[in-house]
Order: sequence, then C-alpha cells, then structure tokens
Amino acid sequence: MSQSSQSQEIVLGDNQYGKAEVRAVKIDRDRDRHSITDLSVSSQLRGSFEEAHYDGDNGKVVATDTQKNTVFAFARDGVGSPEAFALRLAEHFTSSFDWVSGGRWEVKQYSWGHIPTSKSDNAADGEHNHAFVKGGTETRTTVVQQDGDELFVVSGLEDLSVLKSTGSEFHGFPRDRYTTLVETDDRILATKVTAKWRYEAAGVGSLDFNEIYADVRRILLETFADVHSLALQQSLYEMGKAVLESRPEVAEIKFSMPNLHHFLVDMQAFGLDNPNEVFYAADRPYGLIEAEVKRSGASSEPRAWATVAGFC
Amino acid sequence: MSQSSQSQEIVLGDNQYGKAEVRAVKIDRDRDRHSITDLSVSSQLRGSFEEAHYDGDNGKVVATDTQKNTVFAFARDGVGSPEAFALRLAEHFTSSFDWVSGGRWEVKQYSWGHIPTSKSDNAADGEHNHAFVKGGTETRTTVVQQDGDELFVVSGLEDLSVLKSTGSEFHGFPRDRYTTLVETDDRILATKVTAKWRYEAAGVGSLDFNEIYADVRRILLETFADVHSLALQQSLYEMGKAVLESRPEVAEIKFSMPNLHHFLVDMQAFGLDNPNEVFYAADRPYGLIEAEVKRSGASSEPRAWATVAGFC
Amino acid sequence: MSQSSQSQEIVLGDNQYGKAEVRAVKIDRDRDRHSITDLSVSSQLRGSFEEAHYDGDNGKVVATDTQKNTVFAFARDGVGSPEAFALRLAEHFTSSFDWVSGGRWEVKQYSWGHIPTSKSDNAADGEHNHAFVKGGTETRTTVVQQDGDELFVVSGLEDLSVLKSTGSEFHGFPRDRYTTLVETDDRILATKVTAKWRYEAAGVGSLDFNEIYADVRRILLETFADVHSLALQQSLYEMGKAVLESRPEVAEIKFSMPNLHHFLVDMQAFGLDNPNEVFYAADRPYGLIEAEVKRSGASSEPRAWATVAGFC
Amino acid sequence: MSQSSQSQEIVLGDNQYGKAEVRAVKIDRDRDRHSITDLSVSSQLRGSFEEAHYDGDNGKVVATDTQKNTVFAFARDGVGSPEAFALRLAEHFTSSFDWVSGGRWEVKQYSWGHIPTSKSDNAADGEHNHAFVKGGTETRTTVVQQDGDELFVVSGLEDLSVLKSTGSEFHGFPRDRYTTLVETDDRILATKVTAKWRYEAAGVGSLDFNEIYADVRRILLETFADVHSLALQQSLYEMGKAVLESRPEVAEIKFSMPNLHHFLVDMQAFGLDNPNEVFYAADRPYGLIEAEVKRSGASSEPRAWATVAGFC
Repeated sequence: MSQSSQSQEIVLGDNQYGKAEVRAVKIDRDRDRHSITDLSVSSQLRGSFEEAHYDGDNGKVVATDTQKNTVFAFARDGVGSPEAFALRLAEHFTSSFDWVSGGRWEVKQYSWGHIPTSKSDNAADGEHNHAFVKGGTETRTTVVQQDGDELFVVSGLEDLSVLKSTGSEFHGFPRDRYTTLVETDDRILATKVTAKWRYEAAGVGSLDFNEIYADVRRILLETFADVHSLALQQSLYEMGKAVLESRPEVAEIKFSMPNLHHFLVDMQAFGLDNPNEVFYAADRPYGLIEAEVKRSGASSEPRAWATVAGFC
Repeated sequence: MSQSSQSQEIVLGDNQYGKAEVRAVKIDRDRDRHSITDLSVSSQLRGSFEEAHYDGDNGKVVATDTQKNTVFAFARDGVGSPEAFALRLAEHFTSSFDWVSGGRWEVKQYSWGHIPTSKSDNAADGEHNHAFVKGGTETRTTVVQQDGDELFVVSGLEDLSVLKSTGSEFHGFPRDRYTTLVETDDRILATKVTAKWRYEAAGVGSLDFNEIYADVRRILLETFADVHSLALQQSLYEMGKAVLESRPEVAEIKFSMPNLHHFLVDMQAFGLDNPNEVFYAADRPYGLIEAEVKRSGASSEPRAWATVAGFC
Repeated sequence: MSQSSQSQEIVLGDNQYGKAEVRAVKIDRDRDRHSITDLSVSSQLRGSFEEAHYDGDNGKVVATDTQKNTVFAFARDGVGSPEAFALRLAEHFTSSFDWVSGGRWEVKQYSWGHIPTSKSDNAADGEHNHAFVKGGTETRTTVVQQDGDELFVVSGLEDLSVLKSTGSEFHGFPRDRYTTLVETDDRILATKVTAKWRYEAAGVGSLDFNEIYADVRRILLETFADVHSLALQQSLYEMGKAVLESRPEVAEIKFSMPNLHHFLVDMQAFGLDNPNEVFYAADRPYGLIEAEVKRSGASSEPRAWATVAGFC
Repeated sequence: MSQSSQSQEIVLGDNQYGKAEVRAVKIDRDRDRHSITDLSVSSQLRGSFEEAHYDGDNGKVVATDTQKNTVFAFARDGVGSPEAFALRLAEHFTSSFDWVSGGRWEVKQYSWGHIPTSKSDNAADGEHNHAFVKGGTETRTTVVQQDGDELFVVSGLEDLSVLKSTGSEFHGFPRDRYTTLVETDDRILATKVTAKWRYEAAGVGSLDFNEIYADVRRILLETFADVHSLALQQSLYEMGKAVLESRPEVAEIKFSMPNLHHFLVDMQAFGLDNPNEVFYAADRPYGLIEAEVKRSGASSEPRAWATVAGFC
C-alpha cells in the first residue's frame, strides 16, 4: 500500500532512527598500565526512509542492531576521543549506504581514575596499573551531526556540580505585586553545569579534543570560582567568555545552569542566630538560567543545535 | 564595568531564565466531589537581559522567585488546562514588563483518579469524593512559547508505555559486514511513547485542550494496537497520520519512540522450546525511532520546536 | 590457601549470592486473548559457600548465570503468581544442590492492561486481544525465603500513591523550643504506600495469591479513603487492622509511608486568600511513618523480615 | 475510641517515625578557607506512640517538623562527623522526652573538594578558599540507633564504583541442566560497593570517625585492587578481612556488591578478534554478592542491623 493511496495530505517530516545508549567499554592493555574508555554511544541515521514509514518496507533500514555492532567493531580499533569516534561513525554510515545522507552520533564518556596504592606489585608511581575507581560526577558529551557534506560537532559536559560558599550577591531586581524575595549581599551559589560548545567547522578533523576538553573544564571551574557573582547570569556569561577568549576552536557555547537554592535557615524562633552557616538545600523548584555566548558577527547554525537536546 | 570595556567580540546570544518545576497542586473543592490538578510548572522569560549577563545588573531581572509566586497566585483562580494556564502566564509576563518580549512556559500534569469504594459516606457513584490514587504512567505536557506577537503551543505526552505481544514483524533489511540480526515475522513490539504536537496558531485561544488531549491519547493507543506492524517506523507514522486526520487543530506531530527490545530466550540448551512465550526485557541499548508527521505543503515552524526538548 | 593459614579470627558470617533483577516477560498466547506477566526476579542462594569466600574455590558456586537461566526456564511452564513462582525456585535450588540450605527469591510484578478499543478485528468486549498499556504506578512484590525446612513468604506492594484533599487533621502535638509547626484541622494527606505482609506459614502452599493481592490492595485503598485521619499513624494502623481482620492468611503487615507534604501557599502578600485550594508539593524532607500491625500474642519471625528491605 | 473497644486482637508492633532526608548544608567560615559539610539527615523516634496509632492522639508525637528544626539547630553548633552528629541527636531526643526510648538517626554525607586554581586572590596552596566542586561518586553513611541505654553505630559507604580490567577469573563452578556459562581466566570485574560496618560499643563516644572512614575507604580500594580474584566472593571477604585486621574499632562489616557484568563482544562474525579489549557493559540482570565478615566468637547484634537497610 503506497502513501499516495492513503492520503495526499499527511506526510513524513524530519526523521532519524538508530540504536541508543550502546554501553561500550574499551580497555587498552598493550602496556602494563591499562587505560579504560567507558562510553554510551547513540547512533541515528537520516536519509531516504520514507518506505519504512509509509509501507513498512525495510529495504533501506540499516538495522539498529547493525548500528550497535558497528559501534563495537569500530571500538576494536581504539576510540581516541568521543569526537573522533563519532566522526568515524558518521563517515562510515554516510559513505557505506547511498541513501544515508547524514545522521546524529552522540557519545557520552564516564571518567575513571587509577586506584591510588603504594604496596601492590602491579602499581607504578603510586597508582595501580589495572584497578580503577569511578571519577567525578560530570559526564563528557559530544553530538556529531552530518548533513550532506557538512559536519557539526557540539561537545560538552553535564552534571558538573559546583558551589560557592560566599562571593555571591543578588539584589536590585524589580518588585511587583508578586515579589516577596529579600535582597542579599552574601548567599550560597550552587549549580550543576551543563555546557555545550560548537567547534568551528574549519579544521575540526585535526583537533586534539581530549586536550581541549580538559582545558575547557578547567576554565569553567576557575571562572566560576573567581567571578564575584552579582547574578548567576553574570557567572554564566563570564564562563562562556573565558572559554571563547582562550579557545579559538570554539565558535559558541551554550549553558543550562540550574540555580540550586540553598536557603538560610531562620533560627530566631529557637533563639539562635545564623550568620550564613546553616542552609537548607532545596530540590524543587530551582532557578534555571540558560544562555548562549558567541562571537559577534558569527553566523548561527540552527541545524547544529536543533536536536542536541533531543528530538522532541 | 560595561561589555564594551571587556571585549568587542564575545557577546550574549539566545537566552532565557526563570523558575523550573514549580510543583503546584490545585484542589477544586466547591462541591462535595473534589477534583485535583497536579502540576509541575516551569516559567522562563526572554527579552532584554544583557545587563544582567554583562554587568550583573538585575534591574530588569524579574526574580525567578517572583515567577514562582505568580504561578501559585494564578493557580488560585483555577487552572483550566495546562495549555490555558501557560497561555495566561505568557500573557501576564509579556504585558507586565516592557522588556519581556517572550518566553517559554512548560507545564506537566500528573493524573489522579478517585479511589473506587462502595461503602463510604463520602462516596458517590462508586467513587470517593476526596480520596485519590495516582493514575497511569504517562505525563501530559505542554510548552507554550511567545515571541513578540506570535504564540506557539506544543502539547504532548511522555512515558506512555505500550506493548504488542504479537502482530509485529521485522525483516527485509539490508545486510552488511556488521549485520547479524535474524529476521522475524512475530516479535514483541514495546515502546514508551513521547509525542508532541503543535497546534495551529489560528484559534488556539478557544480550543478545548482537555478534550483534544483525551482524544489524541485514545487515537494513539488504538492505532498502536490496530496496526499490524512491519517496522516501528510504520506504527509511528500511522499513529501520527491518524491524529492529523482526526484533529484539524493539530498542525504537526513529532514522536520519540524507543524500541524496547524483548529478546526471545533461547532454551535449546535446556532441552526446551520457546514458541514466543518467554522473553528477556533488555534495558540498554534500545532502538530509537524519531519522526515528524505533518500536512504536506504546511510551513514548518522551527521556532516552535527549537527548545521544546531543552535549551542544550 | 586455607582460611586457617590466614587468620583464626576473621570469619565469614551471613551471606547470600545470586542474580538480581532478571527481567522476564511471559506471554500466555494459547487463546486469542493474550495475557502478559512482566517480572523482575532476583534469586539468591544461602548455604555452605565458605570455600568461595576463603579460597576462591567455586566448586559449590551455582553460577548466577545458571540461576538466571533457571528463572527463564521455569517461566516457560507458566508463572501463576509471583509467590508461586518464587516458591518453585526455592524448591528447585534447595532440592537440587545438597549444600544449598535456603535462599531468598524476590519477585516484582509490573501491571499491564489491555488497550481499550472498539474498532479492531482483534478486540473483544471493548479491549484489544494482544495490545497492552502499562498500568498503575504501584509494583507488586514478594520475597520468599527458605531456611532449611521453613518457608517465609512476605508479599506486598510499593509506590501506591494516594492523596486525600480533605478529611485529615494534625494537632495536639507537644511543643518544645524547636517547635514552630502550626496546628491544622484540614490538610492534604498524601503518601506513597509501601506495604509488606507476611503470610501464615500453615497452608501457604495452597493460597490464591493473586486473589489475596487484589483484595488487600482494595482494602488498603478503601481504608485510606474512609478513615478521617488525625495522624498518618492512625491511617496506617487502620489500614493494617482492616487487612488483618479481613484476611486470616495474613499474619502481620508492615508499612513504610512517607508523609508527602503539601504546604498551603501563603498568598497574603499578593492580597489573595487561599482557603485550602493551592498547595506546594514538597520533595524533601518528608515525614516517614513506619509501623508493624500484627495479631496479639503472635510470635514474631525476625528471620522472615531480616533482609526483606535489603542485606545492608 | 480506645484500642480495646475496637479489637483485642489486632495490635501495633514495632514502629518508628520522623523526618527523612533533611538536606542540611553547614559552612564553616571562621577562616578564609571555608569548609562545607553537605548532609541528608533522617531522624526517627521509637517509644510509646500507641495512642497516635490507635486513637489519633498526638499528645506524645514530637512533630516531624520539630525533628527537622532540631537537625538544623544542632548543625548551628557544627557537625563534627556524621556519627557524632547522629549521636548528639540521639542523646537529645531520648533525654528530652520521657516516652522516647530510642530511635534511628541516619546521616548521609556528600563529598566536595576545593576547586583547584592558580590565579585567584582567594586561593591558597593552589585551591580556592570558598569555591567547591562535587567529589567522587560514593556517599558516606551512618545509622545510629539507640535502644534504651544501648547504642548501635553502623557506618559505611554506598556507590563506590570500582573496576579491574584484568586479574579476575571465574571457573570451576558446578554445571547442571541450566548451566551455559563459559569459564574464563581473564575477565573484567566491576562492582559498586555498599559496605556497612558496626563499631564496637565500648568507647564509641571517643572515636575519630572521620579518620576511620578515610582509612577504611583506602583499605577497601587497595584490597580490591590487590587481590587477584577467583570470585567476587573472594574479593569481598579479603576486603572485609583487611578492614577488621587493621581497625579494632570495627566489630563486623557487611557488603552488598553487585557483579556488574562486562561481556566480551564476540566479533567473529565481523572477521575481528577481540582479545579482552571491547566489552558490553550490561545493566540488568547483575550478580549480587552479599556477605558479612566478622570476628570469630563475637556475638551478633541483630538489633543493630534490623533496619539499617530500611524498615520493610
């Protein structure tokens, strides 16, 4: 049954499909000191897939199981970086199947460190060669999208939890009928940073993504720490500016930063003062500050960002 | 310190801020039979907020706490529907503050039903008047965005888990070096539907959103059940087509549908057959099928969808 | 290396091991109207496993993979009820391996309903024969433990979310230096019920567990609804009493019931009243009310309960 | 309405109530270098609470809100360690209210580190004085229980994720009809350690809990790394033994350690070998190895452990 026999009016729009969250772990063990690369890989293809939707004809549907197998097979040759790995997948699928014109490849990486130990026969420089402990709370991310000959690489991090115990103020905001918030010149500022930055297309194939990631993470932490904050918006902007000033490879950067409220507990009823010492950490609601920081005059790339956060 | 003294080059791009996940519960209790509306409301404003980012000047920053208070105050007058509630918030913020040109208001609604009971003095028609039990697994959603005079209303549902125990096949897909999947003409098809549909802008103020939601939910369930599926893509398309054919108010609909694999357990080694009776329900990886279904010739509205799934 | 050569002093205590959360789905398809049983099964063995711990000798270690396979193989013959299924597993493992003296078998069941539909060829009585939608939020549970010849069956439910919009008071509590709570004679009472009940050992093999489960669930809901509550403790006790009075098979019942606070929003600053209409649903902290209701004079069975909630 | 007029037969058993997950954050700021203590505190009282359950009489019910306030008020004086803080709460509630004979106080602590920075005016020794980044994945825990004059202190950690990329074997296990697992002499061993240790009652008031915690954590990591593992049971036992041999304050230790399977991907179909390099990290099912390690001849303390994992 073809589409035309069903309806002239209802048609397929944008679409993509594949396998999500392939949990691939690669051990490099050619030396005594092993290294581990712990990934969650999602591969989705875009192209001419009308028949599958209209008629259930899978003649062009590269099975999601095949995409999963390909992820594992490519890991056999080494990962390099999440970005390099995603770029290899993009090149493979778009060159192997005529009708695959592009796609979206997302890679998340979880960090591990070698276990510190002094006494083991399998240790060197105070660390065990092949025993690991999971690292920080943040996750490294990348989304590589190909659209014909164009490549968009958006990398980032999620869930980087940071907090300042002083050096944050909030006052001078407008007051209306519904405003009850008291101004403060000393509060806790806490957030869980999601940052995503788009790489300049030119030269993206030759970047040292691991070095850049470590450097951007350092810049984000140092700038959050250093800025005396009058608004979380200000901290966010300064973090983005510092990244763009330091890393020419980065075209623009977006942030989603919750304001994780820590309310000073009022202890007057108990006969106690509370000079910014005891706080109640609230779950919901939370502030949510989101912004893009970019280079003036630069063109925006809506296709690069359209599905970074998800399809719908 | 102004932006110009810092850098000519690094500037603020798109931005929005507000309060997320305000958990507001409204009880209608003017009759013996109470009703409950259980919401998570996120309000974010867009407009001229450069000073807050560049200089930490909060003169235009309607506090996120004020946005929270406004949500509660507006619930005092009744909610109506998630869409109507979000539209009221949009109207309020854009008309109350000159520099607020738009924003994003997301409302999630959790379903409750009256507890069935026969014996209580507080019951009618077999249901208790003011005791409730939480309903199905899905969440009703809406994202209302205003951009100057334009309004975009995208409503939907999340986490509607459905499964067919037969009536699903998958075969005819291409085979390459990495393809190992076996073809099947009878498999379990299971998914957790996320659907988001955009309402036609014309007349959006006078729709009965609650009626439409219930009807779209019914259509999605019935179509998933009825379609003999040769691919999850086919089921998805038919579900979208059925909604669009039945509801002229809906301009387009997007789906994100994981293929939640249920693998037939091979029991040959135990000396047992397994004629599609015992399955292993896998967590990850899963297939992920995503597509938009729309009316041919209709213009797309990228601004309506840009941040439905999130800012980045 | 034997234990004696290591240390006379440090020894193995209680222990159990196995495979957790085996996600087994059984389809009964011998009739047009299919039925689905969706389980998460955890099997753990207890017995003489010292060598594995002291010396890494696995000669008695029935592999956790074997336990998983056994779960699937036994599902091939049908599940019956979570309790009957767990009892079969207990019988199998303790009778098949001399050194296995007992164990713990936990089964969780997720509910599904047939999708309502009127038009399908595959429907009967307004429901589709083989298309399902996930049911309520609660999970049915059982933990069967065997210790030599003794069997302990503790069944229950988790995450049954209920709420009363009136008919709940809280006052008369003692006040000390740290007490600031205001008394109320009309509040929202909301909780997410975890209930676990122990079956009398006598005759446990011949019970209709599915019928009892449905009945206990009904009693819990109706009693929660009917009791005019002066304290969540009172509601809890009445719920337990109603179960024990109605079901002689139940020896005792334990509850863990969070008090999910819904705080009345103070709108005086906005010039609005709020006669118990708009509430803020808080996440944390929450009250936590836990108690056992039992028959007077009955012996307690600490072994039945020792690891129901977990090993440590 | 008294209990006797209702029923002679159905009575209240064990019970406890209080406030759970009070998220209290304490900043010590008397020096330039701040420190942060980030806690989730649960307080539950045990005693004579029959009237509340039988009659809704709250005359003895120290409100859970009061317990929350007390947690915050006590944090004003400093926390010290989670154990010391819980012991102070136990002393307070049992001495302040005649009818409170005991209770359960659980404290979880989340770790934060100072942000490394070189350039800030607010830094010393390469770290920022008042800017923090969240630490490792594990959570420190303690459960203090008082029963009349007796005190039980069980401390531990949760979610310590560790992995060995070699140095783990598994073979020699019995084979039955359902056994299909292949033996291996080189596999990945990965687990997420939950450990809980009970302190000897004698002298528990004068321990340096922070020092012991850091030391036990170090011992657990080093022992996991060093043991060439023939079974996860063996690793678990050696970890417990090492703690007990090194720390006389610890009476016994319990572990719950999932075996987080990393399956070697079979690439033969793709024409590739896979010499322990690429693995698929599975979610469920997982092995679950649980055991107690103790000193021979020591008395067990079931009351100390009865509700460590939860009430039911």
